[in-house]
Amino acid sequence: MQPAPKKYRFALINAFVLPKDSPYIDEHHVPVEGPKESRIMNFESVKDVLADVDWDFSPGALAPYGNWPVLTREEFGLASSARVPLVRAACETGKYNAIVLLGGGEPGFRESTEVARNYGIPVTACGFAQMYLATMLGNRFSVIDIDEVHNMFYYDLVVQHRLDQRCASIRNINFPLPRPGEEQAEHTTRGQRTKALRGEHSEMVEAAVAEAVAAIEEDGAEVLTMGCSATFWLQPFLKTRLAALGWDIPVLEGYSAAILLAKLFVDLGVTASSLTYPPDHPKRWRRKKTF
Amino acid sequence: MQPAPKKYRFALINAFVLPKDSPYIDEHHVPVEGPKESRIMNFESVKDVLADVDWDFSPGALAPYGNWPVLTREEFGLASSARVPLVRAACETGKYNAIVLLGGGEPGFRESTEVARNYGIPVTACGFAQMYLATMLGNRFSVIDIDEVHNMFYYDLVVQHRLDQRCASIRNINFPLPRPGEEQAEHTTRGQRTKALRGEHSEMVEAAVAEAVAAIEEDGAEVLTMGCSATFWLQPFLKTRLAALGWDIPVLEGYSAAILLAKLFVDLGVTASSLTYPPDHPKRWRRKKTF
Amino acid sequence: MQPAPKKYRFALINAFVLPKDSPYIDEHHVPVEGPKESRIMNFESVKDVLADVDWDFSPGALAPYGNWPVLTREEFGLASSARVPLVRAACETGKYNAIVLLGGGEPGFRESTEVARNYGIPVTACGFAQMYLATMLGNRFSVIDIDEVHNMFYYDLVVQHRLDQRCASIRNINFPLPRPGEEQAEHTTRGQRTKALRGEHSEMVEAAVAEAVAAIEEDGAEVLTMGCSATFWLQPFLKTRLAALGWDIPVLEGYSAAILLAKLFVDLGVTASSLTYPPDHPKRWRRKKTF
Amino acid sequence: MQPAPKKYRFALINAFVLPKDSPYIDEHHVPVEGPKESRIMNFESVKDVLADVDWDFSPGALAPYGNWPVLTREEFGLASSARVPLVRAACETGKYNAIVLLGGGEPGFRESTEVARNYGIPVTACGFAQMYLATMLGNRFSVIDIDEVHNMFYYDLVVQHRLDQRCASIRNINFPLPRPGEEQAEHTTRGQRTKALRGEHSEMVEAAVAEAVAAIEEDGAEVLTMGCSATFWLQPFLKTRLAALGWDIPVLEGYSAAILLAKLFVDLGVTASSLTYPPDHPKRWRRKKTF
Amino acid sequence: MQPAPKKYRFALINAFVLPKDSPYIDEHHVPVEGPKESRIMNFESVKDVLADVDWDFSPGALAPYGNWPVLTREEFGLASSARVPLVRAACETGKYNAIVLLGGGEPGFRESTEVARNYGIPVTACGFAQMYLATMLGNRFSVIDIDEVHNMFYYDLVVQHRLDQRCASIRNINFPLPRPGEEQAEHTTRGQRTKALRGEHSEMVEAAVAEAVAAIEEDGAEVLTMGCSATFWLQPFLKTRLAALGWDIPVLEGYSAAILLAKLFVDLGVTASSLTYPPDHPKRWRRKKTF
Amino acid sequence: MQPAPKKYRFALINAFVLPKDSPYIDEHHVPVEGPKESRIMNFESVKDVLADVDWDFSPGALAPYGNWPVLTREEFGLASSARVPLVRAACETGKYNAIVLLGGGEPGFRESTEVARNYGIPVTACGFAQMYLATMLGNRFSVIDIDEVHNMFYYDLVVQHRLDQRCASIRNINFPLPRPGEEQAEHTTRGQRTKALRGEHSEMVEAAVAEAVAAIEEDGAEVLTMGCSATFWLQPFLKTRLAALGWDIPVLEGYSAAILLAKLFVDLGVTASSLTYPPDHPKRWRRKKTF
Repeated sequence: MQPAPKKYRFALINAFVLPKDSPYIDEHHVPVEGPKESRIMNFESVKDVLADVDWDFSPGALAPYGNWPVLTREEFGLASSARVPLVRAACETGKYNAIVLLGGGEPGFRESTEVARNYGIPVTACGFAQMYLATMLGNRFSVIDIDEVHNMFYYDLVVQHRLDQRCASIRNINFPLPRPGEEQAEHTTRGQRTKALRGEHSEMVEAAVAEAVAAIEEDGAEVLTMGCSATFWLQPFLKTRLAALGWDIPVLEGYSAAILLAKLFVDLGVTASSLTYPPDHPKRWRRKKTF
Repeated sequence: MQPAPKKYRFALINAFVLPKDSPYIDEHHVPVEGPKESRIMNFESVKDVLADVDWDFSPGALAPYGNWPVLTREEFGLASSARVPLVRAACETGKYNAIVLLGGGEPGFRESTEVARNYGIPVTACGFAQMYLATMLGNRFSVIDIDEVHNMFYYDLVVQHRLDQRCASIRNINFPLPRPGEEQAEHTTRGQRTKALRGEHSEMVEAAVAEAVAAIEEDGAEVLTMGCSATFWLQPFLKTRLAALGWDIPVLEGYSAAILLAKLFVDLGVTASSLTYPPDHPKRWRRKKTF
Repeated sequence: MQPAPKKYRFALINAFVLPKDSPYIDEHHVPVEGPKESRIMNFESVKDVLADVDWDFSPGALAPYGNWPVLTREEFGLASSARVPLVRAACETGKYNAIVLLGGGEPGFRESTEVARNYGIPVTACGFAQMYLATMLGNRFSVIDIDEVHNMFYYDLVVQHRLDQRCASIRNINFPLPRPGEEQAEHTTRGQRTKALRGEHSEMVEAAVAEAVAAIEEDGAEVLTMGCSATFWLQPFLKTRLAALGWDIPVLEGYSAAILLAKLFVDLGVTASSLTYPPDHPKRWRRKKTF
Repeated sequence: MQPAPKKYRFALINAFVLPKDSPYIDEHHVPVEGPKESRIMNFESVKDVLADVDWDFSPGALAPYGNWPVLTREEFGLASSARVPLVRAACETGKYNAIVLLGGGEPGFRESTEVARNYGIPVTACGFAQMYLATMLGNRFSVIDIDEVHNMFYYDLVVQHRLDQRCASIRNINFPLPRPGEEQAEHTTRGQRTKALRGEHSEMVEAAVAEAVAAIEEDGAEVLTMGCSATFWLQPFLKTRLAALGWDIPVLEGYSAAILLAKLFVDLGVTASSLTYPPDHPKRWRRKKTF
Repeated sequence: MQPAPKKYRFALINAFVLPKDSPYIDEHHVPVEGPKESRIMNFESVKDVLADVDWDFSPGALAPYGNWPVLTREEFGLASSARVPLVRAACETGKYNAIVLLGGGEPGFRESTEVARNYGIPVTACGFAQMYLATMLGNRFSVIDIDEVHNMFYYDLVVQHRLDQRCASIRNINFPLPRPGEEQAEHTTRGQRTKALRGEHSEMVEAAVAEAVAAIEEDGAEVLTMGCSATFWLQPFLKTRLAALGWDIPVLEGYSAAILLAKLFVDLGVTASSLTYPPDHPKRWRRKKTF
Repeated sequence: MQPAPKKYRFALINAFVLPKDSPYIDEHHVPVEGPKESRIMNFESVKDVLADVDWDFSPGALAPYGNWPVLTREEFGLASSARVPLVRAACETGKYNAIVLLGGGEPGFRESTEVARNYGIPVTACGFAQMYLATMLGNRFSVIDIDEVHNMFYYDLVVQHRLDQRCASIRNINFPLPRPGEEQAEHTTRGQRTKALRGEHSEMVEAAVAEAVAAIEEDGAEVLTMGCSATFWLQPFLKTRLAALGWDIPVLEGYSAAILLAKLFVDLGVTASSLTYPPDHPKRWRRKKTF
C-alpha cells in the first residue's frame, strides 16, 4: 500500500553546482553525488522541518562562469539565469506545491517567483524568508555575512526587498569563499565548520560572535540573520554563544526559514500577487503604479 | 492508548466576550456557549489549518466597558487589559507552545508578546500576521475595514508595526458594528453574512468589492487584508469577486494568517526578541537604541 | 469677593499611585497624601508654569498590577486602563479646559485624547509634548531614560508618534526603578536625587551626562528629552553640566512641556482632529485613509 | 505708578512693507500707517492672544524688489535679507523676549533664528508654527495656499522643515496676489475678504472649501493650515463651513500659531539648539553630523 | 594623416537582438543589419550627442529565450546574462572609455558596472540615467511605460536605484510589445511611430499624453521619463503636446540621457565606487554596511 | 576669421568677493584682480573641463555683510540676495547657455534657478552637482567640510535637496575660515594648501584623511564630496591618500562637478521643471502638490 501523499511537496533547488573535480569545493558546498540527505548542506538543521515534506533535491545548474562558488554580481546573474529553467521544469512536472530556492544570495528569486506564479506555486528563498521573518521578531535585524563582495550584493537584495529601513547593518566577518586568487585572503572558510564541530577554536565562529555583538550593541540589531549560505552552519554556535553572553535573541538561518515559509504559503493557499508579478498576458491592467 | 500529542498546542484567545443577553450580539460574534468549534467565527475558514493542532478556545474576557463589541480606542484599551491575564494564565498552564490572539484589532498584542516571551512562547495576532505576510506577497497592501472609528484605531496599529510605507490604504466600507446609537448608521453588519451565504445580494460584499477595486486601481494595493474581524468572512467572497474582475491577488484574513504564523514560529523555535521585549530583569543591557 | 477664574483650568492626572505601605515608594514617587503642591514630583520645576493655572491634582488610579512602579508593557497597559476612567470623570465635571497626563511613559494618552476630544478638551502628555517640542528646536533629539525595559516601551511610543526619523537615540542610564527583584540591579534610582540636591556626587547624574554627551557626539542629538518621569529631576543638573562642557542645547523635561503645551492648545482653541480620533458615531466618514 | 511689565515682550515683524503709493496694496496687506493694532492683518484673530503681551509691531523692511507683494523665490530671498537686520536690531534693543515673524512664507526664518539665538531669544514664524503644531493634532496636514508660485516656494519650506512625510498636500485655490501682469489672472484675492465679511458669496471662500474637502477626502489631511498670509483671514470661514459639512477638524492660521508658540518657548525658557544654529565661534564642535 | 582620436570612445551595446526572421521585429527594434547609424533606434534623437564620440554599436546578444522582445523578469534575467559578456569583451579591447547600455529596462546594468569598474570604465544605462537626471530637474518624476509586465519590472528598478520616494508614478499606456499571444492585446506598438511621424493620429501618442497629464495633475510628476525603449520615440511628440497644453516640463528619453551621462563620467574621471561594486579581491574591507 | 562659437557659453559667478584690502583674504579666495584664469580658485582642477567652454568669470557681488568670507546663515542669505541680480544680468546678456554658481554653500541657487529658467538657461551649483552625482556613484556619500557653522548650513542644503537619506554624514575637519575672532580657533585654513602643494605636512590634509576614513568605516560613505569651497583643493590629495590606504572611491569637488553638469544640461536641452520653479504668471496650474 502506498503511503498517503504528504501535504507538502517541495522542490529544493540549489543555487548552483560545481564540477566534481573543482579544487574549490569546500566543506560548505553540497557533495556532488550521493543521497539527497547527504547533499543538503547542514542537513541536521532542516531534518525536522523536512520530516513532513515530500521533497526532491536539485543540486542546481552547473556554475556557468567557472568552477568556484558564486560571488560577484556577474556570477550571481549567470547563476540566476542558469537556475530559472530548473524552476520552470520543476513547475511543469506538476509534482510540487512549492519551490524552495537554496543559497544565501538567492539568485533568480524574482524570476522564479514570476515563473512559478503562473503555475500557482509559491517560491521562497533564504534571504527573503530570513529578512521578512526577522522583521516580525524585532525592530531591526542585522546580517552576518562573509566578505566585502557578497556584502554588497546582499545590500542590493535588502534594498530590493524594501527592507533597508529595518536592516540595522550587514556585518562582515571577512571569510571569503575559495576562489582563484583567494590564496592571498587573510581568512577563508576552509575547515572552520569542522573545527567548530569538533569543539575546537574556530576563527569564523569568533568573528561571527564579535560582529554579532557589535551589531547588537552599536547598530541596534534585535534579530540576527545569515547572509551567504556558507554562514548558515554558524547559526547554532552563534545562538549559544550570544545566549551565554546574555543576548537572548532570534538567530535565523536560511534553509529552515525558507522551507517553513513555503509551508505557510502552501497552507495559506497563496502565491505572490499577480499585480506584483504579472503574467505576460495579464487579464487586467492598471493605469498607474505608485510606491 | 493515548494519541501522541500534536506538534502544535495552541491557545486561541478571543478579543472579548459579550454577556449572553447582550442585544448587540451579532452574527459575526462568537456564540457565548457551545463546543469550541461552534464558537470560532467562520470556523470553516480555519478548520483545515487547525486539523493538526491541539487547541483550546478561550472566549476572551467579558467586555469590561459594556455589552457591545469593542470599537473605540478606550474600549480597545480596556479589552487589552482584560485579555492579557488570560494570556498569562494560558502560559502558566504549560500546555501551549503558542498563543493565537483572535480579533482584528489585536488588543493586547504587544503586552501578550512580552508576557509570553518570558515563557518561551510565541504570540501571533490577526493584524500583525496579515500585514507582515502581505508585505511578502506584494509591494503594498490595503486593509478592508468596517468604519471610521475602527479605521483610525487600525491606522495606529499599522504605524506601530512600522508598516506605514507598505500600506497603500485603509479602505472603509462603512458598516459599523452594532452598538448603542448605531441605529442611525446607514449600514450595519447585521445579516450581511447570512445573505451572502444564501447567495443573496449583500451590500457589505458589494461595498468590499468596490473599495477593494479602488484600493487596487487608485491606491496601488497589490494584496488585500481584512481589518476588523467582522470583515473576515468576506475573504472568500472578495477573492472570488476580484478574480472574476480579473484581479488575481492574495486576499488574506486574520484567523488563518495568525494560526499559520504561529505554526511557523513554533517550527522555527523562535519568539520575539528579548531585546525588543525585554524581561523585567534583563541579563544584559544596551547603552543606546536607534530606529 | 471671589477671584476671577483663571484662563487655564487643568486636571493633572498622575500615571498611577502606589499603596501607602508599598516598600517600593521611592523619592521620585509622589507622596500618597498631603497638599497637592507636595504631591507633584519636582514641584519647583513647574511652580512657575502653574502659577496662572487653576489646577487639580489626581494621584492617579491605584496601580492595578502590584505595589511597584509601572515598567513592563503589561503594567503600562493596566495603568492605562486604570487611568482613562479618571480622565473621563474629569471631563464630565465640566471644570477643566485641558487634561495633563503626568508620567513619562504616558499610559492612556491616545485613549484619553479620544475620550476628552468628545468634550472639546485637549490632552497633553509628557512624552508627546517633549518629543514634538524637541523637533521644533533641533534636527533630532535623544531620550535619556532609565533602563532596558522602559527604553523599549518608550521606543514604541516614538514610533507611534511617528517621530522615529527625528529621534537620534534612546540612551539608557541603567538605573532601574525599585521593583521586586531589583535588588540585583547594579544601580537603582534610590537616593540619587537627594544626593544631587545636596551637591554630592550622584552616579545617576554622571550616567546621564555621559549618555547625553554620547548622544550629542555619536548619535547626532541636538536636543535632549527625558524618558521615564524618574529622570525628570535630572533636567536642571543635566542642562548645567552640558553647558559647562560647552554643549548649549535645550534639555526638556515632561511636566513643564506637557503643561505649557496644554496652555497653547487652550489658547489656540484646538483639540486633536476628529478625523484622527473619531467619535463613535461620526457625522462624516472617509472612504480611505493613507499614510 | 507704572504697570508691571508683562511676561511676554514680543517684536512682531512683518515680512515686508510696500510703498504707500503702491497700486498693489490690497486688503490683505497691512496699512502703511496708523496705530499698531490697525496694521496687524486680521487683528481680531490675534487680539486675545496678544492681550497679555507687550508687543511692538514692525511693518517690515520696504520691499526691495518692487512695489508688489513678495511671491517668487527671488523676491522671498530679497525680503529675507531685508528683514534679518530688523530682527538683529530688535534683539539688540534688549526689549523683547521673543521675535514673531509675520507672513506666511516666513522669509528669513532660519537666518533670524540663528541671529536671535545668540541673544537667547526664540523666534517663531507662521509656516513653522502651523506645520509643527498641526503634526500634534493629526496624522497629516494639508496647506491651503494661493497660487502655483507660492505653492512651490512653500513646498521647499515643508521639505526644509523635514515635514514632507506629514504633509498630505498643498492645495492651490488659485487666487494670485496683485502683481504686475496679474490682470490676466482668472481670480485674484482682491475684495474677497470684504465680500465674505459682508456675508456675500466669496469665490475665494468657496475655492478654499472645495480644496479643503478634497484634501480631507482624497489626500488624507486631518488638520488644515494656511500657506500665504493672504489666506489667513479664511480660517474662521473655513472652520465653520467644514464643520457644517461634518468635518470637525483643526484649522490653523499663522499669526495665532506663531504668537502662541513664542509664548510657549518663553515659558519653557528655550531657544533653538546651538547645535542646529551654531554661533560663529562655537565653544565645542562635533566630528560628524547625521540625518 | 589620421584624425586625432576623440575624447569619448563609447561602446553602445544593445539589450538584445532578435533573429533576422523573427515575426516580432517591430519598427522600434533595431534593424538586424546595416550601418551602425541605421541600427540605432531613433537615431536622430542622439545624432548630435554622438557627434563628438567615437562609437561602436553592438546589436547585443541574440535573445536567448525566443524570437520576441524581452518583457518578463525571466526574459530580462536571460538578456542580462547574455549581455554582460559583451560588456566584458568591450572592456578588454581597451578601445572604450565608457560603456552605454541601450534599452529601457537596462538588463545587466549592475553586473556590467561591476565588470567595467575593474577596467576603470564607467557604465551608464537608460533607466538609471533618466531617473537620476530627473531628480535634479524637479521634485518627483513619472515614468511613461508600455504595459503591466514591463511596469512591474521597472518598478523593481526604481526601488533598486533607491528612487522610490522621488518617483511619483509609473504610468501605463498599455501598448504591449509584439509577442506570442499578443494578438489578443487591445493595443500594440505596431505602426504607431510611423503614423505619428506622418502626422497621423497615433493612439500611442494620445495615450502617452493622457497618462502624462494624469501624472502631472494627479500624481505630482514634475519631470517625465520613458520606461521601455519602445517609448523613447515618443519624447519629442510628448514634449510638444504637453507644452501646447501649458505644461512646460523636462521630458527625458533614455539614449541621450545615458550617452550624455557617460560623457560626464568620462570628463569627471569617475566610475562607480569600489565600495559599492567591490572587485573580487578587494584591497580593504569594512566591518559593517549601513543603509 | 573669427573662431566658431563654442557649444558651451557659461557664466561662472562667484559666491561673493571681498574688498581688496580685506585682512581676511586667504589663499583659497579668488584674487580680486587679474585675468580670469588666475581668479578661479584651483584653476588646474577645471582647466580641462573649461577647455571647450566660452566662459566669463564674475567675481561675485561684494560681500554685503563685511570683509570676511561668508559663513553664517545670515551671511549666506545676504550673499544670496547679492548674487541673484548678477545671475539675472547674465541671463539678460543673451551670451550664455548655462550659469555655473561657484562656491560650496551655493548661496542663491534656488533663486537663480528660478530666474534663469525663465530665460531657458540651466543653473548648476557646487553642492547640488556634487551631491546628486555622488548618488549615482554609490549608495551613500559623505561631505568633508570645514567647521561647525558651515556644517549646519550645509545640513540644511542636504535636506532641501532631499538627499538626507543618501547622505551618510557631514564630517567636520574643524578648519574655520578667517574671520573676526577666528584668532582663537585652534586650526584655520591659512597656509594649508601652500604647505600641501610644497609636499609639506598639512594638518588640513591629515584631518580630511582622518574624517574621510571615519566616514567610510563608520558612517557608510561610499563616495566623498567637499562642502565649503575652501576644501575643494583637497580633492586630489584626498583621492591619492585614500587610494594609498586601499580605499578606491570617487572623491568629487564642486567646480568640475558643477561645470560638467551644466554641459550635460545644455546638451540635453533641459532646465529645471517649470512645475518646480514656476514663472510668476504660469500658463497652467495644478490643484495640488504632493511629496
